[in-house]
Amino acid sequence: MHPGSSTAAQTLAAERSAEPTCCPYFHQAVELIGRRWTGAILEILLQGGALRFSSIAAAVPDLSDRMLSDRLKELESNQLVRRTVYPGPPVRVQYALTIKGEELAPALAELKRWARHWLGTPA
Amino acid sequence: MHPGSSTAAQTLAAERSAEPTCCPYFHQAVELIGRRWTGAILEILLQGGALRFSSIAAAVPDLSDRMLSDRLKELESNQLVRRTVYPGPPVRVQYALTIKGEELAPALAELKRWARHWLGTPA
Repeated sequence: MHPGSSTAAQTLAAERSAEPTCCPYFHQAVELIGRRWTGAILEILLQGGALRFSSIAAAVPDLSDRMLSDRLKELESNQLVRRTVYPGPPVRVQYALTIKGEELAPALAELKRWARHWLGTPA
Repeated sequence: MHPGSSTAAQTLAAERSAEPTCCPYFHQAVELIGRRWTGAILEILLQGGALRFSSIAAAVPDLSDRMLSDRLKELESNQLVRRTVYPGPPVRVQYALTIKGEELAPALAELKRWARHWLGTPA
């Protein structure tokens, strides 16, 4: 990290090139939304508003109920999703994005644009 | 894809409720950039241009050489990163984003903005 042998010229060159660094918050964000199926679930909730478990499950093929349940719990604990229970009968449970979750929309929209352009057409 | 049994009424209902659906390309993109450390590596290459292996490693603390090597190979095979060997001696190897990789910049910038706002300050 602090090479003792660096000369003044090397130090200057390093400063001038604005040594790239990794933003820990960014890293955390990528790992958060990049977990298997999380991006897809966020996308569905952005489109659909408040949804029931079964609606989310239906919208994401290949996603098991067990996995969906785990992911929703994670998103809840990260305050991206809010779970609301409406007393019944029948009891209804809905999942919706929080403000924090909704504000991912521009990032996800850009990623979708990129995906359609670069992955949606033959290379 | 083309449900033969759908009636006009069903089709209309589906259109009206704008049933949320998961875009497979988007899903693929999230899983691609969401792999452990991949976001951080892309970020470093976006900032730093063409970089040597050791410079990328130095910029991302906690990332082992083995993991960095695996991730770079993945990014190369997905055409996000180009590896260039400059004949020596000494031989130099540099990694840089392709156009496809560079065009992730807006999505990553939006995600960074979100991360700084929502993860960078106490909740």
